[in-house]
This record gives sequence, C-alpha cells and structure tokens, in this order.
Amino acid sequence: MHRITVSFILVLVAVNMTAQDPAKVLSSVYSEALGDRTAYNNLGYLCKKTKGRIDGSAEAGKAVEYTRQALLQAGADTVWLQKVKVPHWVRGNEKCVVRSSVNGKKDLKITALGLSVGTTDRGITSHIIEVHNFDELKSLGFSKIHGKIVFFNRPFDNTQINSFAGYGGAVNQRSMGASEASRYGATGVIVRSVTPSLDNFPHTGVMHYADSVNKIPAVAVSTLDAELLSKWLKSDSQLSVHLISNCKTLPDVWSDNVIGEIRGYLKPEEFITVGGHLDAWDITEGAHDDAGGCVQAIETIRIFKKLGIKPKRTIRAVMFMNEEMSSTGGRTYAAEAKKKNEVHYAALESDRGVMSPRGFSFDAEGLRLDKLQALGSWFAPYGIKDFDKGGGGSDISPLKSLGALQIGYIPDSQRYFSYHHSANDTFEQVNIRELQMGSATIASLIYLIDLFDL
Amino acid sequence: MHRITVSFILVLVAVNMTAQDPAKVLSSVYSEALGDRTAYNNLGYLCKKTKGRIDGSAEAGKAVEYTRQALLQAGADTVWLQKVKVPHWVRGNEKCVVRSSVNGKKDLKITALGLSVGTTDRGITSHIIEVHNFDELKSLGFSKIHGKIVFFNRPFDNTQINSFAGYGGAVNQRSMGASEASRYGATGVIVRSVTPSLDNFPHTGVMHYADSVNKIPAVAVSTLDAELLSKWLKSDSQLSVHLISNCKTLPDVWSDNVIGEIRGYLKPEEFITVGGHLDAWDITEGAHDDAGGCVQAIETIRIFKKLGIKPKRTIRAVMFMNEEMSSTGGRTYAAEAKKKNEVHYAALESDRGVMSPRGFSFDAEGLRLDKLQALGSWFAPYGIKDFDKGGGGSDISPLKSLGALQIGYIPDSQRYFSYHHSANDTFEQVNIRELQMGSATIASLIYLIDLFDL
Repeated sequence: MHRITVSFILVLVAVNMTAQDPAKVLSSVYSEALGDRTAYNNLGYLCKKTKGRIDGSAEAGKAVEYTRQALLQAGADTVWLQKVKVPHWVRGNEKCVVRSSVNGKKDLKITALGLSVGTTDRGITSHIIEVHNFDELKSLGFSKIHGKIVFFNRPFDNTQINSFAGYGGAVNQRSMGASEASRYGATGVIVRSVTPSLDNFPHTGVMHYADSVNKIPAVAVSTLDAELLSKWLKSDSQLSVHLISNCKTLPDVWSDNVIGEIRGYLKPEEFITVGGHLDAWDITEGAHDDAGGCVQAIETIRIFKKLGIKPKRTIRAVMFMNEEMSSTGGRTYAAEAKKKNEVHYAALESDRGVMSPRGFSFDAEGLRLDKLQALGSWFAPYGIKDFDKGGGGSDISPLKSLGALQIGYIPDSQRYFSYHHSANDTFEQVNIRELQMGSATIASLIYLIDLFDL
Repeated sequence: MHRITVSFILVLVAVNMTAQDPAKVLSSVYSEALGDRTAYNNLGYLCKKTKGRIDGSAEAGKAVEYTRQALLQAGADTVWLQKVKVPHWVRGNEKCVVRSSVNGKKDLKITALGLSVGTTDRGITSHIIEVHNFDELKSLGFSKIHGKIVFFNRPFDNTQINSFAGYGGAVNQRSMGASEASRYGATGVIVRSVTPSLDNFPHTGVMHYADSVNKIPAVAVSTLDAELLSKWLKSDSQLSVHLISNCKTLPDVWSDNVIGEIRGYLKPEEFITVGGHLDAWDITEGAHDDAGGCVQAIETIRIFKKLGIKPKRTIRAVMFMNEEMSSTGGRTYAAEAKKKNEVHYAALESDRGVMSPRGFSFDAEGLRLDKLQALGSWFAPYGIKDFDKGGGGSDISPLKSLGALQIGYIPDSQRYFSYHHSANDTFEQVNIRELQMGSATIASLIYLIDLFDL
C-alpha cells in the first residue's frame, strides 16, 4: 500500500513536470543543447582517443567504456553492456605502385576494403583494365579480364541533389566489384573512392564476396589517383600495377552494444530507442560516421535528465557495435528484445553525419505519417522543415519486425561523402553548433513522439 | 528598317530559348552547377593567390584582375571596372603580453580591429578591467576605468538558433567598444572575438570612433585567451597587459568594383544585380566572407551563358570593393546608376557564407512578397524552403532608393561565425557541393524573378 501511494505521487509529479507547453519544452531543449559542450567534448574524446575503433580493436573497447561512463554521467537510470559477436578483420601493409614505360612510376593512395582478403606479403603484379560498370565487365569477358587487376572507375554522380543518391549510384563497385571481376578471372580490384571530392583520401567501406567466386583482393584508390591512373592508361594500356594489401580476417570476437535508459513513468515496458553506431573504420576518427550519432543519443538522455523531462515510455540510448561490417549489433539488440517480449514503440537512428539538421524520415503511412509530418509545426522556430516518408537506418531496421516505428535523422547531406570512411572524417570537420542543433532536434522529436503517443 | 527586323528576329529566338518549362530550366541549372568545377577553382584562386585582399592592397588589385578575367571567361557580354575610393588601413606589429604575479606570463592571440588607431612602437602597458556591456562600463565610471585597458568579454550568445542573432548580440563591443571606453579615460580596448567557437583564432572586423572621443587602440582576442584572461583576472585584478598594435590609416586610395553583364533581350535598360564583395580582411583568405559570394555571382553569368538562358533584363554580376570597412563599393555603384538614370529592378547579395543553401530573404510586402514566397514551389526538388521577409545586404542596400527589390541569399547559418573575419576562413572550410548548390540556387532565383516579372 505504501509503495503504491509513493508510485502514485511520483506519477503525479512526473505528469506535472511534463504538462508544460511543448513549445516551451522545445525552447528549453534547444537552449540546453546549444549552451552545453558535453556532446562536443564526448565527440572529441571518441575521435582523438579511440580513433580507428574498428570491430575487435582495443580502440573499440575503449569507446565502449567511455560511452558507458558518459551515459552514467548523463544521468541514465541504468547503463549496461550487451554482448555482440563481431568480425575481426585487420589491415596489413598496403602499397600500390603503378609503372608505365610512357609515364613513369607513381605510388597510388589506396586503402583495403573492409572484409577483403589480402595479397601475399610479396603482393601481386598485373596489367590493369579500366571499367565503369558490370555490363562493361561482362562485354569484355574472360579473355580481356583474366589475369588482370580490374580498375572500377565510375565516378560518384555529382549532379544528384541528394548526395546519398550520388553514393548509391557508385557504391556497388565497392561492395560487389571484386565478386563480379573474379568471375572473369581478375587477380584483384582497385575501386575509385565513392566520394564527390577530388582529393588524396582513399575511402574504404565494406565489401562482400558472392558464395561461388574465388576471393580476390580489393582496395579503394583516392579520386585524384583514379583520375591519374585513368589518364596514364589512355597513353599506355600496358602499364602494370604492383599491389600489396595483406589484410586478413581472424576469427570473430566478442564486443558490446552500450545501452543507457531513462525509465518511463507511465509505460516503462514500452521502449523508444535512439542510437548511432560506435564502430568506425580503422583508418578514421569516424567523427561524422558515427561518433556524432552516438554522442547525440547520449545527449538525449542528458537533456531529458537535466531539464527534468519525464518520458512516459522508457527511452534508450544505444551505441550499436559493428554497423560497418555486418550489423550484428543491431541484430543482437533486436533479437534480445524479442526474446524478452519487449514492446518497441519507435526507434531513431542518427548515422548520416553531423551536419546542420534538416529533419527526419519516417517509415510510416496514412494517418500515422500525417500525424508525424504535422510535428513539423513544432520545429518551425528552429528551421527544421523536412518531415518525409523514408527509412530509418541499418542498426534499427531489425526492430521493425517488433513493430517499432523507424525514424531516420536527416542532417544536410551535401558534405557527408567528402568525409565518409576516410581519414578526412575528423573531429575538426564537425562544427559544434551543427552538432548541438542536431542533438536538440533529435531529443525534441523523441519527446514529442512519446508525449503525443505517435 | 533592316536593324529593326534583325532585332525582332533576335527577340523571337531568345523567347524560344527561354520558353521552356521553368522546372526543366532549374533542373539544368542545378546539373550544370553541380557538374562543373569552375566556381570552386575560382574560389581556390581567390583564397590562395589573393589572400588578405584588404582595400588598397596589392592582393585586392590581383583579385580585381582575376575576377575581371573570370567574368570574361564566363561569357559576360561586357566586363568593366568601376572606380571606387577606399580606405587604406594597414596593420603593423602586434603583440599582447599579460603578466600576473599570481599566474605568470602569457602571449595572447590578438588582431587589431579594422580602422583602429595604433599604439606607438613601444606599445602601452596598463592594468586591465573586464566588463560585459556599456551599462557596466558606465556604472564603473571614470575613476575605475581611467588609465586602464578595458577588456570587453561578453560572449556570443550560443543559445540563439540563428547565429546572426548571436553575433548581433555581441558585436557592438567590437564596433563601438573603443569609443565607449574612451569616454571614461581608457587607454585601449581588448575585445573578445565575436564567434561561437572556443579556439585560438582572433576575429577582426571594423570599428568606428564616435566624433567626440579620444581615439584609443582596439584589438580582438581569441575566445580561448579571453577565457584565460578572465580567469587570471579573478585571481589577480592587478595583472598588467603590454599591448603593441601599431596599425595606421593612410590616405584613401582608388580601387575598383568589377562588373560583368549579360544584356537583356527585351528590357536591356532594366538591371538585375547579383553580387558579393571582393575585399576581405588582411588576416584571412576570406573564403566564406566573401570570395564565395563573388564566385557565385560569376557563376550566374556562366550558367546563363552555358545553358543559353536569355534574360529579358540585363543581369549584372558585381564584385563590390570595400564592403568590410565603409561600403563605398556599393554606394559608388548605386550613385553611378542614379546618375545614369538606370532602372534597377532587383538586387541579390550573397554575403552570409558558402554553406548549404536554405533560401532567400526578400525586402518586400503584401502581394509582391506573396508572389516571391510562392517561388518556393519551384525549389522543392532541391530542398530549398526558406522564402522569408528580410533584408538584402549592405552592398546592395543603396540600390533600394532606386527601387530595386532587395534579396538576401540565405545559406545555413550555423558554421559562419566560426570562420568570419579570422585566419580560419579558408578554402578548405568550403565544401564544393555546398558552393555549387548555392550557385544553382542563386542563378535559378534570378532566372525566375526575371521570367515572371516579380
């Protein structure tokens, strides 16, 4: 009886604290986010102290511990680690030298693609053939491809307005190029980095081998060196490349998702997840991809606690492990939720960089989509205007089968692929106000969705 | 008779070429801008080869010649220089050492404010007093201020959503702080840089002396050193500062506005101006402020010519000189227009940086504003959604008295003041796609306003 009374009083207090005008709450959320440097400092730590936090690395372990502490400091009611099995791919020596009797010799800026097999320590030496798509590869056929390194040089389509469309139009060279080239007897592939920038940064990213093919090494080359290689090939089709990339895949290891939650006062058994991914490629600080998404998720907890916003549902900030290679973090999180019969109401992913916020995409239809889009009016004072139908993200997608509304956080897209998966994705490329505006926008949406039962 | 016939045919041809679906024209404009690197290369030249192009400098002269050539290469029908008288203020040696018996000694990162008087070569040594606003200065009065250096330390208000509001709330310390402090007998002022960033870049900017006051030297200090100075003052109010800043103002000199135009086919005697300013502070590459605005104006000409868009009115791209110190470029341009009885239909200024485009502000009311805002529908495919009432910019404001509609180009505001007026405003801080998207957006608006007679 005593406990019931106390609970009842707590509920009343909580209701009072959240029975404010939502416009005023949003105003407080933006002021708090813009006036506080915690998220920016957390980002700085992840970038500078856990750089290269690829699955299975010591840096990833350090990032797990740091974000666990950061969630505690943010005031999460409960913080814990969830075991996740992850691939353990390690880079080796890398070198790519092109030699041409016409043009001379040049070291190309390369980086192995994630999950690629390696060359031997001595590497491979081959002639090289430039192609732009899989149809061209097919029409050249075994006789022209066999024994050569295939150079995929289809550029990112800069004329696309949304840079994700430009990326989407070129990325299959990276993900499937080795498998396709292997069918015709290629010895390896060199893929033009999937970026709109013309610079010296090679951009890595995951690749996969089809079941049936002979696995051949795959590397990305910087766009400037791709331009050079293409130019040299025009005057010397017989130039040769010596490629060393002795990366390898070791047995899977255990890692962790990092989870912190604020217990809901009314429906604690319903969950709203807000997350980013903690792993990053080994060659990068992973500031935009995706330390920013992680610190913004932590910031949702911090802002709620700091302002005394009591959610009806339990709000969980999740740092997912292994988004980059095989998304076992997201799948493990959903599998455990299913095992425990958890009710997952909604999930939001921030994994499109830390640019100025434009809005959200919702995987909803009909009346629910209408209601979600109508939330835009609350964001008018903050210039947030994109409330569109669309997807969530790869880490939260396994929650869809549990009924969770999928929400994607959408920052401005123009700069993202200039940094993505490269050594150029640094803390210095993030602007503090763009990070803070994003945090406020995410926390505000979570608050409104919970408040209005959307 | 012959000439009339030819003109009539030319008009018909021109009408045909622009009688396309405006949506298709905009699509072509965006594709052209995003697929071409001319503007980015022009920006690179202005940043790297004419860095520090302050009024009266050799670099400013070089920027005039470069943009004159760039306008010719863009295909402008006519390109010319317009003489403008500009101030000739030159920086000298700068050093600011703080000495405290409690805390030790430190060199502060400073930069003289534009148009400030200098110290002598030996500099001044004074105690220092921290204030946050002019009321505080007044309440301290002559007895507390006399003989000291006043340290204005009111921060940029980071909680403002639009960073221009944060700037506006702090900038009077920079522009009028010396005059106000001088009334109470101060020997000089050190002003906290007007930026949301905490870093080591001092941000300069223009300052003015009220007529009645004794002119005292004024410098800006980096925000990190402002924080340090404030901290040291708390433990040692008797610390002293030795300040050397022997800048000086030489007699005015002649410089140029750079103008290129496409002659209108129907109303050539009506003008639409699109411009940025060519001068930049001597300590900076001036990438965002405002080389970007200049190359976007040139790009309007290039895109119109490349795509064969024939404007009804004459479109002028103008690189204004001396926006930063006293706007004589804008005033000269308007004065000559008035002298020639030119009809100025509209004028657009791009001087808010080269971030991703959000839209435009229009100094219009009633039905005209409604029509201008309705243009937003053409920009929906490009995510450009801000079509608001607001101002144009300081270079074009003198054209208002000639009836020109004032239009401000509005990119995302969050990052701008991290760069503004500092050595941090570099080419590397500009993203090619954000520049290109801005160029396309500006060229598209100019096209639509001319097409629909708005």
